[in-house]
Amino acid sequence: MLVVMQAQATEDQVRAVCQKIESLGYRAHSMPGAQRTAIGITGNKGEVESGTLDEMPGVQEVIRVSKPYKLVSRDTKPDNTVIKFPGSHVTIGGTDLAIIAGPCAIENRDQAFKVAERVARAGAQFFRGGAYKPRTSPYSFQGLGEEGLQIMAEVRDRFGLLIVTEAVDYESLDLVDKYADVIQIGARNMQNFSLLKRAGRARKPVLLKRGISATLEEFLMAAEYVMSEGNYSVVLCERGVRTFADHTRNTLDLSVVPAVQRLSHLPIIVDPSHGTGKRNKVTPLSRAAVAVGADGLIVEVHHDPDRALSDGMQSLYPDQFDALMAQVKQIAAVLGRTIERAHEPIAATTK
Amino acid sequence: MLVVMQAQATEDQVRAVCQKIESLGYRAHSMPGAQRTAIGITGNKGEVESGTLDEMPGVQEVIRVSKPYKLVSRDTKPDNTVIKFPGSHVTIGGTDLAIIAGPCAIENRDQAFKVAERVARAGAQFFRGGAYKPRTSPYSFQGLGEEGLQIMAEVRDRFGLLIVTEAVDYESLDLVDKYADVIQIGARNMQNFSLLKRAGRARKPVLLKRGISATLEEFLMAAEYVMSEGNYSVVLCERGVRTFADHTRNTLDLSVVPAVQRLSHLPIIVDPSHGTGKRNKVTPLSRAAVAVGADGLIVEVHHDPDRALSDGMQSLYPDQFDALMAQVKQIAAVLGRTIERAHEPIAATTK
Amino acid sequence: MLVVMQAQATEDQVRAVCQKIESLGYRAHSMPGAQRTAIGITGNKGEVESGTLDEMPGVQEVIRVSKPYKLVSRDTKPDNTVIKFPGSHVTIGGTDLAIIAGPCAIENRDQAFKVAERVARAGAQFFRGGAYKPRTSPYSFQGLGEEGLQIMAEVRDRFGLLIVTEAVDYESLDLVDKYADVIQIGARNMQNFSLLKRAGRARKPVLLKRGISATLEEFLMAAEYVMSEGNYSVVLCERGVRTFADHTRNTLDLSVVPAVQRLSHLPIIVDPSHGTGKRNKVTPLSRAAVAVGADGLIVEVHHDPDRALSDGMQSLYPDQFDALMAQVKQIAAVLGRTIERAHEPIAATTK
Amino acid sequence: MLVVMQAQATEDQVRAVCQKIESLGYRAHSMPGAQRTAIGITGNKGEVESGTLDEMPGVQEVIRVSKPYKLVSRDTKPDNTVIKFPGSHVTIGGTDLAIIAGPCAIENRDQAFKVAERVARAGAQFFRGGAYKPRTSPYSFQGLGEEGLQIMAEVRDRFGLLIVTEAVDYESLDLVDKYADVIQIGARNMQNFSLLKRAGRARKPVLLKRGISATLEEFLMAAEYVMSEGNYSVVLCERGVRTFADHTRNTLDLSVVPAVQRLSHLPIIVDPSHGTGKRNKVTPLSRAAVAVGADGLIVEVHHDPDRALSDGMQSLYPDQFDALMAQVKQIAAVLGRTIERAHEPIAATTK
Repeated sequence: MLVVMQAQATEDQVRAVCQKIESLGYRAHSMPGAQRTAIGITGNKGEVESGTLDEMPGVQEVIRVSKPYKLVSRDTKPDNTVIKFPGSHVTIGGTDLAIIAGPCAIENRDQAFKVAERVARAGAQFFRGGAYKPRTSPYSFQGLGEEGLQIMAEVRDRFGLLIVTEAVDYESLDLVDKYADVIQIGARNMQNFSLLKRAGRARKPVLLKRGISATLEEFLMAAEYVMSEGNYSVVLCERGVRTFADHTRNTLDLSVVPAVQRLSHLPIIVDPSHGTGKRNKVTPLSRAAVAVGADGLIVEVHHDPDRALSDGMQSLYPDQFDALMAQVKQIAAVLGRTIERAHEPIAATTK
Repeated sequence: MLVVMQAQATEDQVRAVCQKIESLGYRAHSMPGAQRTAIGITGNKGEVESGTLDEMPGVQEVIRVSKPYKLVSRDTKPDNTVIKFPGSHVTIGGTDLAIIAGPCAIENRDQAFKVAERVARAGAQFFRGGAYKPRTSPYSFQGLGEEGLQIMAEVRDRFGLLIVTEAVDYESLDLVDKYADVIQIGARNMQNFSLLKRAGRARKPVLLKRGISATLEEFLMAAEYVMSEGNYSVVLCERGVRTFADHTRNTLDLSVVPAVQRLSHLPIIVDPSHGTGKRNKVTPLSRAAVAVGADGLIVEVHHDPDRALSDGMQSLYPDQFDALMAQVKQIAAVLGRTIERAHEPIAATTK
Repeated sequence: MLVVMQAQATEDQVRAVCQKIESLGYRAHSMPGAQRTAIGITGNKGEVESGTLDEMPGVQEVIRVSKPYKLVSRDTKPDNTVIKFPGSHVTIGGTDLAIIAGPCAIENRDQAFKVAERVARAGAQFFRGGAYKPRTSPYSFQGLGEEGLQIMAEVRDRFGLLIVTEAVDYESLDLVDKYADVIQIGARNMQNFSLLKRAGRARKPVLLKRGISATLEEFLMAAEYVMSEGNYSVVLCERGVRTFADHTRNTLDLSVVPAVQRLSHLPIIVDPSHGTGKRNKVTPLSRAAVAVGADGLIVEVHHDPDRALSDGMQSLYPDQFDALMAQVKQIAAVLGRTIERAHEPIAATTK
Repeated sequence: MLVVMQAQATEDQVRAVCQKIESLGYRAHSMPGAQRTAIGITGNKGEVESGTLDEMPGVQEVIRVSKPYKLVSRDTKPDNTVIKFPGSHVTIGGTDLAIIAGPCAIENRDQAFKVAERVARAGAQFFRGGAYKPRTSPYSFQGLGEEGLQIMAEVRDRFGLLIVTEAVDYESLDLVDKYADVIQIGARNMQNFSLLKRAGRARKPVLLKRGISATLEEFLMAAEYVMSEGNYSVVLCERGVRTFADHTRNTLDLSVVPAVQRLSHLPIIVDPSHGTGKRNKVTPLSRAAVAVGADGLIVEVHHDPDRALSDGMQSLYPDQFDALMAQVKQIAAVLGRTIERAHEPIAATTK
């Protein structure tokens, strides 16, 4: 915390601010400059509740300095976190890129299997699909619930794909923890702190999507909530932020990838489907996401987007996903990264 | 839904789009213009899942037209909703403005009583205070929980103030429904649809804060979630949105007040404390909120902001709140509105 | 400028940063804290070009502290600037509110006179109208140019209204300086520094509109450009900023009014017409603008908005402007402010 | 233009809206639906000034449909524009990527030559450097003016690099047109329509940077201004937009690249230096820009960023630029694109 005094602040005013800081139990560090004096504050645990400091005579402004995150920080853990999955060589955060693909929502067994078969063949290691859908309208399709989770468990058995699916409350989180391999927390729930803490007590890794207008600090603090409860397997996911721009549904902020990697040891992947909301932008932005250094992609694929119950406009056709995979593999190679299958493709499709 | 064709689209392309629309079960209305053809879609219930329409040859863009909200709409209920409280003449949404004031968080009985005594005397009808605090950091003070609710119930008994407090999950919502008079859903939970549905099954009115980057439509749809479960007593609250501007914590969007009033019958109040994040901006923006036509204010007041456990920088001193009330009463009078006490002031302070 | 070191930074790293700062010609103030060390920089004139400081080993981040504005600052001139107009008792920035009204564009003499007659009668002291229109499309009506200025000069003679009109380049600025009473610099040109400097050499006061995504600091620095050339008569104008919100054309940021008043001595007015872009929002936001403490309003009025050549959707009918004036006068009175006519109304309309 | 009627609108209200539209000289197309009626408007040249349509009884909202750009549109010219430079095989918009590199500002001959020598050797075909600098503060270094242009002309002679530099007003534009190869219009002047029109009458290609909060449509319309005056050689440049995000100076919006390519035939390049404002983000975002399909890059490079007179924090060291070039060449190859030198490297460095 730093208190910047006005140019014409008197010595008495500076002294009064220092005394106020000390009275709050902190140490004040006065630092006179050519134009004005700044006063540093140390000795605080966490954020200083600065109260009326910025209202005191002679005070220009109060600037916060300390970063509040701990467990997510590279200060705490310099090496990259690599998340492993028991009984599989698949990882998130290592050299190998994680490719998560599937429909927006699980609609029925046939749809799930048709899409899973194609994304597995194309080289994805993870299958995504919503069983619990947070929809803007209460009258929209809200997902199949546990039945959707059971279908995805079958998909895992049949195609050797690891399952990623969203939890929206305690009940669904417990079921996702039971059936799936990765618990997704959606953008709308990024600051649903009760749910984050519950996810922090789950056994499975958590895929945490960035809130639609979350700063980097809020994003990392949401991960800190999960980790503070003991679950250290957190994957961050950039999925676009809300801006004035109207040519895409959201504005995909790829710069957050190197920004996260500088401050945190956690892996970060990119969702170009929600990040653009338009099918024809998914492949170019997937290439860009891999090129910027992301640890993976999460992409919506549907065998019949016309009849999809949600997000049809942003879902790739399976053939488009094949082409996407071919392109991103080449980009990955430029960065010294690979995309390996979860299992031998033949085993996966004939077992 | 409207499909706009490219200038050079052929008649065959127009016909193909119309056939596609019909095949999806809707009606297509072709509308040739001087430069290009537009095709309207009707017959849909709720949103059309337009699938690949915007990818068809000759299509320029696809524009959504229908509004998805129903119960919140003035189309459905032309008259203003006025929320009443049993055993009290206090209302929200009528001629009388609702003034909700109190500390950010309930810290202890003494603090709550000190603040409540002052805001009751100044003319507020509602006491606000957080028992469950959604904090960005897991290491910040998270509220007293049920003990905080019990203190607020005592405040009601002692000062005749109605109680407004936030619920953050099912457990806290059930307790808030039991102890308080209004259930607040915070900005971070505006699209926590599970919580909204639970609030829709509660008995008490719901104060729904606008999400930090919620559009007007999303805001109204969140209220629709509550109403769709049977609770029609919803108060909307503008509390600032996130923008690039850095001179306030959020940018208070007062234009949403007349915008809501045009589309919906629900009352809307304004939170100038979170809306600005700076004590010295709360009073001017409170005046502006009443002048724009809001149905009330929710304001943070603390008798000792220096030592507040949260949001000290934006809390008014009680004397400042007195001055605010004097000013907003005069502004209210210009609009033909009043601010009446919940009870006789003497009874409230001497009982 | 403040350099914040990482928690694990070594003493050598701190020393190296201090030496680098000194080598750049500044003074370094090391300030060790419980968790980390911060290093203050003083001795700089204007902004430090921090170069590679933030890339040095052990550095967490670099924070800028000093404010770069001088002439606009209350530090430099504590009293409010009150702009006077020769041969008139009208002011901007004093107790009396400045009301500027008129059509978006001057279309012809008849239109200008019809609107001017009504806004003068309603009590406006200034007439606005565009002769040079910055339009998004090169194919839209671009204004009458000097002919429009001549019509406005006639309006001044006939109705006793002072003239406010926009300049878009050197040529138009020189003409506006010759014909009008206030030179408007539009939002799109707020950082057209060549034009700002030219306006700083003009004889007439400058009405500077906030850029559509200008921070408070950029806004004040634009005024600093004008003042740095010797023209100290600058009026700031909030006219809405660009955000994700789509229920108004822009988001009117009324909190910038008290924010400007805290940092600067310059007057600030509000444009609710561009600030909302919708006729039905202009009156409520005008009330709010006066209530928040603005020094005036600039409002679009047209006697026949259906046939307006630009911005018809946001122009008030004259009758609506009458009603607006009646309301804002009452709000102004609550704040101890007045709205006085430029001349006796009878003289103005019968001369 | 489309008028959407309210659900309960009467037939008379629909008829009245249609008559109003016809009275404005357009054609009305009534389109009754299950829930409500929509009325299309055709026959308009350019934008309909809808006046009071949205205020008529029974009207829900008015939606604009037609796109206002013409010359920039792929509707008008389906094939990509490839800009050529006389006496050189260098192009912008063809298979070969355009790499523009150099310091933020030209400081002196020695600095310019040192940087130019390195960027030429690394494979850039264009040299950038500011002679006229639009700075937020009037007290910051504003550029060397014509002397800077002369230095850059020498750079062209010495290293065979084509020169890109910014014009900020008529005078500087005429000089840039004389000395340089590409006239840059900066983000702050993207809607300085007088300057755009002047650039439209210049002989050299124009590099038009996206305004800091420009929509795609506004960006294309700014190019339309240049083209409408006869200069069809326009290169668009994404350089980051302003959002709430604070981990970079701006938010680089790479999705605008495929969006532009869908609507327009003009080439588009990316500026990762201003787009991020942080040296350590320039290389990852450069890779991403090439991967998304941009036609080139414009990158700030300085041999001594510590002592740069502007933007030191975002300038690459020459060695970092070498590494960047090596990486983007590989990414370019994946997309079937190349990066070829302007001249033989030996000739360039030994002549």
